[in-house]
Amino acid sequence: MAVDTGGKTGRRPGPTSSRDAILRAARTAFTKRGFKGATLRLIAADAGVDPALIRHFFGDKDGLFDAAMEIPPETVLALLDTFDAPRERWGAELTRRYLALWEDPLTAQPFLTMAASAFANTAALEKLRTFVGSTVLEAVRLRLRDEQAELRFALAMNHLIGIALARHLLKIEPLTALGFDELCALLAPAVQRYLTEPLP
Amino acid sequence: MAVDTGGKTGRRPGPTSSRDAILRAARTAFTKRGFKGATLRLIAADAGVDPALIRHFFGDKDGLFDAAMEIPPETVLALLDTFDAPRERWGAELTRRYLALWEDPLTAQPFLTMAASAFANTAALEKLRTFVGSTVLEAVRLRLRDEQAELRFALAMNHLIGIALARHLLKIEPLTALGFDELCALLAPAVQRYLTEPLP
Repeated sequence: MAVDTGGKTGRRPGPTSSRDAILRAARTAFTKRGFKGATLRLIAADAGVDPALIRHFFGDKDGLFDAAMEIPPETVLALLDTFDAPRERWGAELTRRYLALWEDPLTAQPFLTMAASAFANTAALEKLRTFVGSTVLEAVRLRLRDEQAELRFALAMNHLIGIALARHLLKIEPLTALGFDELCALLAPAVQRYLTEPLP
Repeated sequence: MAVDTGGKTGRRPGPTSSRDAILRAARTAFTKRGFKGATLRLIAADAGVDPALIRHFFGDKDGLFDAAMEIPPETVLALLDTFDAPRERWGAELTRRYLALWEDPLTAQPFLTMAASAFANTAALEKLRTFVGSTVLEAVRLRLRDEQAELRFALAMNHLIGIALARHLLKIEPLTALGFDELCALLAPAVQRYLTEPLP
């Protein structure tokens, strides 16, 4: 199964995509060099634009960082395409789709940054809570036609989130040692159970 | 099953426990009033000691905060008493023991503080990683006699951690709406499976 993790296929041509090119270059630079090491000059060069264009779009480096580390809602909502698959594949689909986002440092970094902000300040936490509570769970209700849709999805997703943080943030040895397919095979049955089997 | 969540039974008598009394008062004050609102004078009064004694033990407010928010290793290691129960109860035992720590704000706060520090700075992350990697997983290896002991425990625990963060930090609605027993009943089967059933 192919999962489009986005942002890996290089720069798109054409002037309308300058903003996207800057965001991709910024994500790479911030992930590889940290906030301090990633200069606007470097990011501009990598994106093939003039540094003035970065200022035009994002104001300053803080503005660019915020934009680069924003998780696109469509990335999260794409997880719900899981429910287009046959029901017996839901556990495997959701597991792969979600964990694949973490395997690429470029897509993982915004998740880590969001988690860190949510821990550090109440405003970011509130923003995340609203996004999950309204946008995501609302969409889940529509896609997963089940009285306990939100509970099922919350159990499945937060199981996966705990494992993703342990593997990619804490880097707990037995979890980092696993291959991606192996990890997915271990987790899919529990996710499947939460999504489809009768709950106690 | 009774779970001793600690720190709830009030002040122990006797001079040797002043340090503990201060830590308990500090945990309450920081949790209820935040770092700024919790004054040393208030904490000293609540612990029934002179503020000078706080300075003697912990230096300043920062030192007291660090000590109060440290998760006692024995709290984590007590989770391993799970493996004294009959094997078929391990999932239920570990689930209850761990999640009970989060139900009381006084014991939950150090977990949240630790998670926040781990996200915010590399030193705290490294400390946590070392504690989990050596102390905890070492102990697991001894208690859970199984070739895949560490992997099993890591899967079970990080599943539970993801749910605990969603319920107590993000406060995701379908998870906060559940009673404690209900939540444990939902999660125990997956935890049991990770701990005892053949892994793919």
